[in-house]
Amino acid sequence: MSRPADRPTPEEIAELVRARSGDADAHRGEVYLVGAGPGDPELLTLRALKLMQCADVTLYDHLVSAGVLALLPATTERIYVGKRRADHAMRQEEINDLLVQLARTGKRVLRLKGGDPFIFGRGGEEIDSLSANHIPFEVVPGITAALGVAAYAGIPLTHRDCAQSCVFVTGHLKDGSMDLDWPALARPRQTIVVYMGLTGLPVLCGQLVEHGLAPETPAAVVEEGTSNTQRVVTGTLKTLPRLAEGAKLHGPTLTIVGDVVRLRARLNWFTPDAPAPQSPPPKRVPA
Amino acid sequence: MSRPADRPTPEEIAELVRARSGDADAHRGEVYLVGAGPGDPELLTLRALKLMQCADVTLYDHLVSAGVLALLPATTERIYVGKRRADHAMRQEEINDLLVQLARTGKRVLRLKGGDPFIFGRGGEEIDSLSANHIPFEVVPGITAALGVAAYAGIPLTHRDCAQSCVFVTGHLKDGSMDLDWPALARPRQTIVVYMGLTGLPVLCGQLVEHGLAPETPAAVVEEGTSNTQRVVTGTLKTLPRLAEGAKLHGPTLTIVGDVVRLRARLNWFTPDAPAPQSPPPKRVPA
Repeated sequence: MSRPADRPTPEEIAELVRARSGDADAHRGEVYLVGAGPGDPELLTLRALKLMQCADVTLYDHLVSAGVLALLPATTERIYVGKRRADHAMRQEEINDLLVQLARTGKRVLRLKGGDPFIFGRGGEEIDSLSANHIPFEVVPGITAALGVAAYAGIPLTHRDCAQSCVFVTGHLKDGSMDLDWPALARPRQTIVVYMGLTGLPVLCGQLVEHGLAPETPAAVVEEGTSNTQRVVTGTLKTLPRLAEGAKLHGPTLTIVGDVVRLRARLNWFTPDAPAPQSPPPKRVPA
Repeated sequence: MSRPADRPTPEEIAELVRARSGDADAHRGEVYLVGAGPGDPELLTLRALKLMQCADVTLYDHLVSAGVLALLPATTERIYVGKRRADHAMRQEEINDLLVQLARTGKRVLRLKGGDPFIFGRGGEEIDSLSANHIPFEVVPGITAALGVAAYAGIPLTHRDCAQSCVFVTGHLKDGSMDLDWPALARPRQTIVVYMGLTGLPVLCGQLVEHGLAPETPAAVVEEGTSNTQRVVTGTLKTLPRLAEGAKLHGPTLTIVGDVVRLRARLNWFTPDAPAPQSPPPKRVPA
């Protein structure tokens, strides 16, 4: 299908904003805790993009996509603070301290986090340290991975017919088990979104069945959601671990469990096959 | 504190985008299902703003803020489809049909919904109808009210010390009771976000205590979150209904229950007292 012509790209918008920002007055240091969204740079908020243009220094972790980082001015100092599992470039306490120290030098400090800073982002801990040190800060919500992935995978997280609640959890596999509140999760008419890697998938699916969900409950794993390399594997609690293994997914991934996953068969609209990672996502006519 | 000078306003960004859009080629009709976020126009995504600039006609409901609507080009046809409680300007089936009919005339149709279209937005039902009628569509996630309100109220929805899961529910008071899965909600280390009006608040708080949460569990009601008229009332499950009544809140409101609410005492940064609804939110130095 045809696309409206000549829409500006995110880069062009950023350039326009940047040209207007100019040099700011002398100012005290401050921190912007900003959600960078799930990957697609077009899912940044206007506020996030604006603060990206006026920050002196940016601290980011591995969940912030390359497309988003490309919208930072070339002159912005960048500090990678890690956060891949077992590959923390910097410990949380060190990040907290660095934010305080940078702000004290009078800099505008952008703390850019994948998704939303208050959903499994430990953003609360970082601003708690700022607050204790009397550093002014601002929080900008972001499109958390669950929302981005759901939209681009065609899976409504709530639906009058099959889900009146939606729960976000994160889990870590430790000694073969996961510290999750299974009875609270394994409920009818609830969508579960799990922010975690693939290693725990068999335990997750197994425990949900053990606590009462039907083995036929639909479930999906989404890899690199919202990006042009997005891959979606759908199955059931019974079949998903094997299917995910067969698909050789790596990550980052998000798992969605619940009857809403079945709707994807009708509602999937996004075909992640465009060559340029930042072009508008292609569409197809639903079958 | 000082603000970076000369940041463009959302209106200016919209104007820049609009100037670039130009007239598009002849095209088939299509629908954009777009989340408008919680109120503050700066929380629109770049993609939402772009689609707003190229739509021929927009269908919106009462949760879309005036500040967001102001970013639509003056030439865009606007259709209010209601959705205040007991004041549905249009029934859901009528909205579904209208989207199909408008798209069939070859128009680009923007369906603008407050928050995120897949979180209690019935967006799934609308695109299901489009899919059945072979109308191309695209879904753009938005900052759902829970994320916006949490950020602007200084309440992290998850926190290593007190919440490892977060659940979103909606409830309707009917004959004095609410159809919610209380045993699943009344759990330790979980944040509950309730998308509903104030009338159900006493039942909500009462049932959560009856199902095991301590009466001292912190809870907050936020009115018009993220806007410059935002008001936050904090208390406990025992005290909140009375406090909310005393504050004469009207709506729209969102209720947050869980230990994370206590963090607001340290993490609140947003003082909603600025005169212009679309200026950058003011900040204060945390005490």
